[in-house]
Amino acid sequence: MKAAIIGYGVVGSGVYEILKENAGGIAQRAGQSIEIKYILDIRDFPDHPESGLFVKDYSVILDDPEVEAVVETMGGVRFAYDYTRQALLRGKSVVTSNKELVAEHGHEFFALAREHNCRYLYEASVGGGIPIIRPLARCLAANEIESVAGIINGTTNFILTKMFRGNQSFESALKAAQENGYAEKDPSADIEGRDVCRKIAILASLCLGKRVSCADIPTEGITSVSAEDMSYAEALGCSIKLIGRAVFRDGRAGVSVGPMMVPKSCPLAGVEDVFNAVAVKGNMVGDCVFMGRGAGKLPTASAVVADLIDAAVRGGYSGEFSWEDDGSAAFDPAGLEDKFFVRILPKAQKAVTERFSGAEFIRGVSDLGFVTETMSGTELDRRLVGVEGVVSRMRIYQ
Amino acid sequence: MKAAIIGYGVVGSGVYEILKENAGGIAQRAGQSIEIKYILDIRDFPDHPESGLFVKDYSVILDDPEVEAVVETMGGVRFAYDYTRQALLRGKSVVTSNKELVAEHGHEFFALAREHNCRYLYEASVGGGIPIIRPLARCLAANEIESVAGIINGTTNFILTKMFRGNQSFESALKAAQENGYAEKDPSADIEGRDVCRKIAILASLCLGKRVSCADIPTEGITSVSAEDMSYAEALGCSIKLIGRAVFRDGRAGVSVGPMMVPKSCPLAGVEDVFNAVAVKGNMVGDCVFMGRGAGKLPTASAVVADLIDAAVRGGYSGEFSWEDDGSAAFDPAGLEDKFFVRILPKAQKAVTERFSGAEFIRGVSDLGFVTETMSGTELDRRLVGVEGVVSRMRIYQ
Repeated sequence: MKAAIIGYGVVGSGVYEILKENAGGIAQRAGQSIEIKYILDIRDFPDHPESGLFVKDYSVILDDPEVEAVVETMGGVRFAYDYTRQALLRGKSVVTSNKELVAEHGHEFFALAREHNCRYLYEASVGGGIPIIRPLARCLAANEIESVAGIINGTTNFILTKMFRGNQSFESALKAAQENGYAEKDPSADIEGRDVCRKIAILASLCLGKRVSCADIPTEGITSVSAEDMSYAEALGCSIKLIGRAVFRDGRAGVSVGPMMVPKSCPLAGVEDVFNAVAVKGNMVGDCVFMGRGAGKLPTASAVVADLIDAAVRGGYSGEFSWEDDGSAAFDPAGLEDKFFVRILPKAQKAVTERFSGAEFIRGVSDLGFVTETMSGTELDRRLVGVEGVVSRMRIYQ
Repeated sequence: MKAAIIGYGVVGSGVYEILKENAGGIAQRAGQSIEIKYILDIRDFPDHPESGLFVKDYSVILDDPEVEAVVETMGGVRFAYDYTRQALLRGKSVVTSNKELVAEHGHEFFALAREHNCRYLYEASVGGGIPIIRPLARCLAANEIESVAGIINGTTNFILTKMFRGNQSFESALKAAQENGYAEKDPSADIEGRDVCRKIAILASLCLGKRVSCADIPTEGITSVSAEDMSYAEALGCSIKLIGRAVFRDGRAGVSVGPMMVPKSCPLAGVEDVFNAVAVKGNMVGDCVFMGRGAGKLPTASAVVADLIDAAVRGGYSGEFSWEDDGSAAFDPAGLEDKFFVRILPKAQKAVTERFSGAEFIRGVSDLGFVTETMSGTELDRRLVGVEGVVSRMRIYQ
């Protein structure tokens, strides 16, 4: 099979490297060799060992009937959307690591792939190298999925780990992440939770077969998590993790992104640094957890290449990883029930004691906190109406 | 698709229940309904809601061309071997949870399935409900697998957890496991490591595409692990886990089963009670870990049903999860390098200090121990030749 890479950045070049390095095993598992015939990039790579592969005109790739698959590792939506569309219109399968594009436009691409009998595959868009799309769709196919929750952003997990283990402030942990190459110069998509939002939207849509739009996912990042929150977490036997979570009910999903207290007895609590993990609860299998490197050149590229192999084995359309957009797949996650950790100023203690009977207070440096019984976010809001001095609240993962 | 269940014990009845309970979702994902037409068992089930399904004569199933797949949940080798063979000879796919049969005869069944254009699937044979066969073969297809190691026996993990957390002796922890229904009356296959041996043989064979025979896997159980070993582990910041491990080199595997010290920084260390976990190292993706319930009626049955769905989607032969027997796929794992924890009597301390420069001793109740540098088991043996008072040794997982 001949393929083209469009976008020769970190992941794109990783795909090229893996196809060279593991060529023998890949050919065996794909039933044929997989060869890169073109690489499209606006930059020049004169020192590349195969500089003859590089083109600047996408139509060269589109017009070559030998090219059966396109690896889209450009990122962003603007050009990638159009390039993906054109490839699928020609019946060329597209394999991507572009979570933004999958979350926003996946449903359009699945429909195009069906029309033109090819595939749109995106294992690399969530959890980097961790197999998660196929296990969810295929291996747990006997189950009704009840929930999916994960640590699916390495940058923020690195920052939270530094804050928790090293007693660092958010700002200094972010700086460390940038110095280590784990955070971008503009880290907002990571630290404000937008990256997690896209990924959990993908997982929720996959589980439902219906699109969950990012617009329907309340998203909170980690910028307001403080060293004092970490001390409270420690006192409660928890870690604080940025969790994307989807809970499924009656064919719809309540999806949210935000920091949660995760009890140490839970496997997600021990996932540190840039590692990712996704916990899936099926109605028959119970809890499964998938862990690994959620980012990085070769792990992510290895997921892209797994999709390429899949496309080589079966190039024609298959609906198994697809969803449709019928505009109504999400419900408000405020209705979901958890325990909450609530921080309050001393002046709120009297009102809280009246409204949360049996609340036991933990004293922090500047305020105090308590753990509620299990209740919905809506109910918590109701109980806190008119209470002055509520500092913050955080759901406790269970 | 019509299927038959042969062997209506714990897993077989779980398969029936899941097919009823999740019928809608399963039909959707399989592209057709999956219906049980016959159940073969020597016992009578007069109170079963569909008692008309039960037959005692296997030829009824074999001779019915409507039956496309057979679920073999009989266990054991004696009858299951013949029943599996006959189904495949008629071109009926076989789905199994029978690890003993897969480990011993899988290669014969894959060959038969190829000849008769059907499938032999065994996701449920390792790790119960945890997706592991497909992730290894498909999702990590871009990788050369460097090693697979796992906690793949719930009974022994329950016992070791009780010993570690509850300071119990092996005997009392085994009794607790039996009382909780986690250990059989005759627990020897579990506690002597034979069950783990079969499962790691399957994973190693799958990764290589060549059979690794249980006869080539040095197997040690947990019967000699003592409360004192647990104290040493605690002092070293480790847990003791029964690990099945396969390390791949040059198309062959060094496979072993035995208790290992697992540092707490490793995800496997935190896998407790009856949970299972498999850690896979790929040359591109790095480390991935798959965790979940490794046993139990519904988790195991959910893996069987996932295979049934796969067989419904694609009934014809596919070689992707198969291996051949060419008689030479294993190398002696004594050559593999790890750190070791060695327990010695005080009288051996002088000799050990001479032969292991820089050894730091930890004092236990009845003896003392030290951690070696990284070396092969062969090298360790060489260095300990003639040292009197070596109590035990255990590899340290890294």
